[in-house]
Amino acid sequence: MTSQATDLGVVELDHGSGAQLSHELISLIVETLGDVYIGEMEDSAMLPISSGQIAMTTDSFVVDPPFFGNGDIGKIAVCGTVNDLAVVGARPLYLTLGMILETGLPIARLVQVLTSIRETAREAGVKIVCGDTKVVRKGEADQIYLNTAGVGVFERTPMRMRDVRPGDRVILSGPIGNHTVHLLSIREGLGFEQRVLSDCAPLNGMLDELLATVGEGRVHSVRDVTRGGLAAVLHEYAASSGHTIRIEREALPIQFETAMATDMLGVNAIHAANEGCVCLFVAPQAEQEVLAALRAHRYGTGAVVIGEVTEAAEPLVLMRGADGRDAVVDELQGAELPRLC
Amino acid sequence: MTSQATDLGVVELDHGSGAQLSHELISLIVETLGDVYIGEMEDSAMLPISSGQIAMTTDSFVVDPPFFGNGDIGKIAVCGTVNDLAVVGARPLYLTLGMILETGLPIARLVQVLTSIRETAREAGVKIVCGDTKVVRKGEADQIYLNTAGVGVFERTPMRMRDVRPGDRVILSGPIGNHTVHLLSIREGLGFEQRVLSDCAPLNGMLDELLATVGEGRVHSVRDVTRGGLAAVLHEYAASSGHTIRIEREALPIQFETAMATDMLGVNAIHAANEGCVCLFVAPQAEQEVLAALRAHRYGTGAVVIGEVTEAAEPLVLMRGADGRDAVVDELQGAELPRLC
Repeated sequence: MTSQATDLGVVELDHGSGAQLSHELISLIVETLGDVYIGEMEDSAMLPISSGQIAMTTDSFVVDPPFFGNGDIGKIAVCGTVNDLAVVGARPLYLTLGMILETGLPIARLVQVLTSIRETAREAGVKIVCGDTKVVRKGEADQIYLNTAGVGVFERTPMRMRDVRPGDRVILSGPIGNHTVHLLSIREGLGFEQRVLSDCAPLNGMLDELLATVGEGRVHSVRDVTRGGLAAVLHEYAASSGHTIRIEREALPIQFETAMATDMLGVNAIHAANEGCVCLFVAPQAEQEVLAALRAHRYGTGAVVIGEVTEAAEPLVLMRGADGRDAVVDELQGAELPRLC
Repeated sequence: MTSQATDLGVVELDHGSGAQLSHELISLIVETLGDVYIGEMEDSAMLPISSGQIAMTTDSFVVDPPFFGNGDIGKIAVCGTVNDLAVVGARPLYLTLGMILETGLPIARLVQVLTSIRETAREAGVKIVCGDTKVVRKGEADQIYLNTAGVGVFERTPMRMRDVRPGDRVILSGPIGNHTVHLLSIREGLGFEQRVLSDCAPLNGMLDELLATVGEGRVHSVRDVTRGGLAAVLHEYAASSGHTIRIEREALPIQFETAMATDMLGVNAIHAANEGCVCLFVAPQAEQEVLAALRAHRYGTGAVVIGEVTEAAEPLVLMRGADGRDAVVDELQGAELPRLC
């Protein structure tokens, strides 16, 4: 940290008081966010909207550690909400930003988070339209928690879980497990964090290009593979469609070091949280075209088919091993892996 | 707490894992929210909206204590966001709900919060459209923090701070300081909490009736008097209008016990946070009609004129005492009163 950054001081209780110190903090926030912030100093932002239907979503972020190798909680907070809007087919437009700060957080760290928010929002083409900052005492939070809520508009038909059909190919846009391994490696001092980076990325651009290329209606449903991992996503689809989903163990895109690390940690990559990976259900005849379109984008270079929705009318998730035998993928009771997002 | 409530157990880390325990918690949340919850089990809610212009706002809530005499953090989280939308002239429609839960929180307490959210949302006529739950370890939060973001639509002309004019009467919809005294009294064991209740209330109904009665254009601007208190609101208006605002000390609506308590606590009621009080700037000729309309509503029975926007082109806030002399109301550097909202 430069001495200039250190000079900014630390977050104090009065930064959340609503009085003068609050205003100073808000000025710093607004200045750092720059042109991605379009709020007014009113109790609500007033914004144009052009659609008869909006998408709306929210996530709170309690990432531990909040600052990691190739990103921070600010980047995740934008990506998480942008991706949740994009996977239902919406164009993300507006994000709100709620921050809970622990007393003692260096303000330079806050500036770092805000800078990430700005850069990621720019890349995703979204605006921050309003915000709120609360300060709590030492031991009442862990440095910084964020919340983003997002609004998007539909310029195409919404995509839902129920739109999957038997025969649909299951495609992953990239490797799984990296975000979890990166963060756990830092937490536990395992030394993998240099070689395994978080996948955190805003995926609306990739999905836009995909849908523009292959056309609507051939990509049936898309889901962000975050908390609970691939297994949780597939279980939700199996439950909602009533069909068995079968994936191939050998097809799962897992980086070599990630496999090593998950083995060491006793974690299964299919249960690991990601922050820049989507699972797509596509018409079988569109499979190659979807793969090509995804791979043409920098966030989809690792896209692969991992399985399919079967005709079997039982809501199961099966994984076929190298020996050709199916094993049931159970849903975990809990993952014991808190605070990855 | 009944034994049935105790039987619900406590929040555990795995309730935030995205796996089976998460689903159980989400089912409980959805069930408790009942018909005010209209989300789908998708990554985003998809909602009808009349296109044109929306209002959008967010607040995080870190209330200490989260459970108090006549309300809890859930009620505040709905009121805060509903009121922020209503004061700019929007009709609140959709709320998101983000929750950060500390391990060990009795689930019965969570149900209590959700029940408050349901009842308050019903009263305000808003829906909860999506949510997110994160769990952190002991000492990483204080029981429960909430975030709500809200979307509203405009069926009338938006009202902004810049719409105030010299000559406007300044009206408060009810007494100030009660919310702060109620919470601080519980925190400090002062014994006032039975006689001084929080004013926490959703005010969109009252503002709707007001604007329907007196007509648009005569109420120039409205602001929620929350964190930072009346003084912060008046300073913002003085700064944005460039005019001096003068209030009368004797006109300020402060309950007797509240005045006693604020004296004991060394707090000035004009700096105290409220959760169900708005400050209105109205055309002088509409003053009596506005007062009558407010007083006709149960949340506005204590409405009074407290001052006016003067012609003086200096952004000051003055308070005239019983002796007829003006004193400058300074903006505090900080209030040293954290976590009231």
